[in-house]
Amino acid sequence: MSTLQSSDETQEFPSITVAALQMEPRVGRKTENLEVSLRLIDEAATAGAQIVVLPELVSSGYVFSSREEAFELAEAVPGGVSTQAWENIARQRNVYVIAGLAERVGNKLYNSAVMVGPEGYIGTYRKLHLWGDEHLYFEAGDLDLPVFHTPLGRLAMIICYDGWFPEVYRLLAMQGADIVCMPTNWVPMPGQADDAMIMANTLAMANAHVNSLNIICANRVGTERGQHFVGNSIIVGADGWPLAAPGSADRQQILYADINLKASRQSRHLTTFNTVLRDRRTDIYDPMLGTGWQLPRY
Amino acid sequence: MSTLQSSDETQEFPSITVAALQMEPRVGRKTENLEVSLRLIDEAATAGAQIVVLPELVSSGYVFSSREEAFELAEAVPGGVSTQAWENIARQRNVYVIAGLAERVGNKLYNSAVMVGPEGYIGTYRKLHLWGDEHLYFEAGDLDLPVFHTPLGRLAMIICYDGWFPEVYRLLAMQGADIVCMPTNWVPMPGQADDAMIMANTLAMANAHVNSLNIICANRVGTERGQHFVGNSIIVGADGWPLAAPGSADRQQILYADINLKASRQSRHLTTFNTVLRDRRTDIYDPMLGTGWQLPRY
Repeated sequence: MSTLQSSDETQEFPSITVAALQMEPRVGRKTENLEVSLRLIDEAATAGAQIVVLPELVSSGYVFSSREEAFELAEAVPGGVSTQAWENIARQRNVYVIAGLAERVGNKLYNSAVMVGPEGYIGTYRKLHLWGDEHLYFEAGDLDLPVFHTPLGRLAMIICYDGWFPEVYRLLAMQGADIVCMPTNWVPMPGQADDAMIMANTLAMANAHVNSLNIICANRVGTERGQHFVGNSIIVGADGWPLAAPGSADRQQILYADINLKASRQSRHLTTFNTVLRDRRTDIYDPMLGTGWQLPRY
Repeated sequence: MSTLQSSDETQEFPSITVAALQMEPRVGRKTENLEVSLRLIDEAATAGAQIVVLPELVSSGYVFSSREEAFELAEAVPGGVSTQAWENIARQRNVYVIAGLAERVGNKLYNSAVMVGPEGYIGTYRKLHLWGDEHLYFEAGDLDLPVFHTPLGRLAMIICYDGWFPEVYRLLAMQGADIVCMPTNWVPMPGQADDAMIMANTLAMANAHVNSLNIICANRVGTERGQHFVGNSIIVGADGWPLAAPGSADRQQILYADINLKASRQSRHLTTFNTVLRDRRTDIYDPMLGTGWQLPRY
């Protein structure tokens, strides 16, 4: 017998080092927040990180006291001071940076995330699913769910409550996304203890597993105008298991993990018969979605 | 001011007691398996259970050695010996029984689940997503994802690998399902320890949480023709947290929980702004699903 051996099985493939930068922004103190973010990016890059993710609305803070304050803290993307600062350090330190910020487009605000790299500005995502009082300041996202192709792999961005929608992860996986970068501002939830696995971590693990997606969740910590944030940032591998254990509930912290795209792309094949994405029964789902009961009855 | 107080807020509503019957079927020994299932149903009913769920393929066993063996162990639903036995005890003990069995329709086999109650046969579900060697014996399900209305609430059935498809839970929640009953035969997975939270439990918790569904997962235990099964049955509440802690990894066991449909239907409202099912951005999802890259590129 000939010994035909595919290079698929034998070829080593280098890993990527990624980091979740859990930090504590202070609402309204943009200069200070940007300085802290740059210090954390610098530290992570020095430690070898090639992709770093910062929390949601990291340069502005989260709990606005008025529409005027939200407008004042929002900025153009690209072109604004936050994107510019992150573009500069991305170029200097040869790192990809994903971070949340308040985006202003004319008189509309979006809860956005920006991706920059050594090559400059890459793209913007606007949060599709707004949470609570965000409805008072922001428009719901209108840029779909883009996947950005970089030399390190296919990267996507989603924000916080987007993670409650399995549709989001499916739509990214079906475009071939390798790594989902999630700036977030997770808050306490009923039934949830800070020192046990939080529900948002469970959601990330489940969605990573059924889509073979690596997911980097960078949460904030601290209490802002009475709103507490729970930390517990996490990096989940494409098999659904945590690569970096949940972060502290209350301290700034950098979580690191190595992601191997060869392993994660191969992990989509569960058995010789099964790969989840190809096993989807769209012949069943699609006609059911067309039957008129799409608005839930409750 | 008038004190208008909705009965929604104040009215007590009785809970339902449900049970997951974790058992060890022996392949080919249908009479013995049915006897064990009836004994467990009887015990659970005596303890107050009103809805009981048994594992996947519980009357036949799982690891067939040939197509002939699978055909021999399959039966009509309703009308076959297994459904008949469960109908009888359901009537006698005033209980709803959901159980997995091999269904035969002419020369086609299905990996099915049946629901029977005090009123007799209620309905059948055929597993939509086949796993591994099931492809050698069974046809993929063709009965959609039905929700059955009972005096206790709206009940649905799914089986094992179906739980890897968030689409399934969404389609059930959007039809108003209260309780998803899952006969399953979960097996070991890479990275998973029997004595820690297994991935299948994580998936059930995540899907319960984002759909406000109660989920009853009844797994089997034991090793059959070299295939090990991991137990760890679980009952999850509509907020995503376990109501009954994971079952043993290797012993027959009954898990009980109380489910309150008033609490679970109310749990769909996360904030005054947010209910997950209504927050779905179908305006974004649907056009993206129509763009032609639905077959994943990997």
